[in-house]
Amino acid sequence: MSKVTTGATMSLDGFIAGPNHTDGFDHLFAWYGAGDVEMPSGLPDMTFKVSAASAEHLRRLQERVGVLVVGRRLYDITDGWDGRHPMDKTVVVLTHKRPDDRPADDENFVFVTTGIEDAIAKAKQIAGDKDVGVNGGEIARQCFDAGLLDEVHVDLVPVFLGAGIPLLGQIKDAPVTLAGPTSVTQGTAVTHLAYRVVRK
Amino acid sequence: MSKVTTGATMSLDGFIAGPNHTDGFDHLFAWYGAGDVEMPSGLPDMTFKVSAASAEHLRRLQERVGVLVVGRRLYDITDGWDGRHPMDKTVVVLTHKRPDDRPADDENFVFVTTGIEDAIAKAKQIAGDKDVGVNGGEIARQCFDAGLLDEVHVDLVPVFLGAGIPLLGQIKDAPVTLAGPTSVTQGTAVTHLAYRVVRK
Repeated sequence: MSKVTTGATMSLDGFIAGPNHTDGFDHLFAWYGAGDVEMPSGLPDMTFKVSAASAEHLRRLQERVGVLVVGRRLYDITDGWDGRHPMDKTVVVLTHKRPDDRPADDENFVFVTTGIEDAIAKAKQIAGDKDVGVNGGEIARQCFDAGLLDEVHVDLVPVFLGAGIPLLGQIKDAPVTLAGPTSVTQGTAVTHLAYRVVRK
Repeated sequence: MSKVTTGATMSLDGFIAGPNHTDGFDHLFAWYGAGDVEMPSGLPDMTFKVSAASAEHLRRLQERVGVLVVGRRLYDITDGWDGRHPMDKTVVVLTHKRPDDRPADDENFVFVTTGIEDAIAKAKQIAGDKDVGVNGGEIARQCFDAGLLDEVHVDLVPVFLGAGIPLLGQIKDAPVTLAGPTSVTQGTAVTHLAYRVVRK
């Protein structure tokens, strides 16, 4: 059955980025260069080289995901991934206003301006029996708070950032307990953990 | 060789306690009741019942530790554990002022008023070839910042607290990367992770 999942590389102190969004990335993403198996990255002009265990883990996750949901911020930062997301999936972008140069949706990008519920509904429709992959941070928080999230994947790396952007932002119902971990995969310089969200 | 270690039960968002120090404990310490193997707790009048994997993990850790180092706050909160720490170890208490009812050190409590370096030196002397176990939070941070910490143990539990006390407080050199995990043990509702501090 189709699930809504989120996941991110997270520091041991719970941050998916430093205070200024992109700082700390060299520490957080060291595991993306800690092996010898090449993987396509989520960024243009960049290839990862991860451990065999991490490569197998990522491959399985990426196979399950049929569509991605991101915020407008990431879409703008990456400049729309130059036209197509490197994971070769349709991306649903949650935004207040459709970009002027994108008058219509296509197989690359779908814009939703009416909130997280509609973005997830649209994504599920596109995903079919595959999963919906929601970007960590603010979009994942909205999803979590709306009771729409099924799974949380954490790539835990042994760095203390000291401050930064939390995986699920400031969720409204904290403290909240998840079930699991439902899987633990040890890579090089990273521990891949999966948790299931418990519906109330 | 004797090592200086710290460890704590930590939420997935990096906190060892809620904002008011003791809130969040029911979520954080759910794993202490998630199994059927009885263990002495670190608190008076309380016994843990943990999974077999967690029990074995805790037993091995406790065997290695010869002495504990805590702050005055924990000593006061627990009322000096009614005379002897439940782990049956000598406790070195870092404090600004020795308690009036403790004019002299004994095998139960040793008070150090001259800073973290002296507290660790004293603890190492007592520990012999066993490890020094430093309490997580502020004392662990002082230890880490002074370059005195060798290992960090994290009992990672799947709860988001939203806010609280970080495992290593606000370390001065963040971001800082540790090595490992050097061990991963899956319990019930907890993942036991160990990391090695990398000296600069």
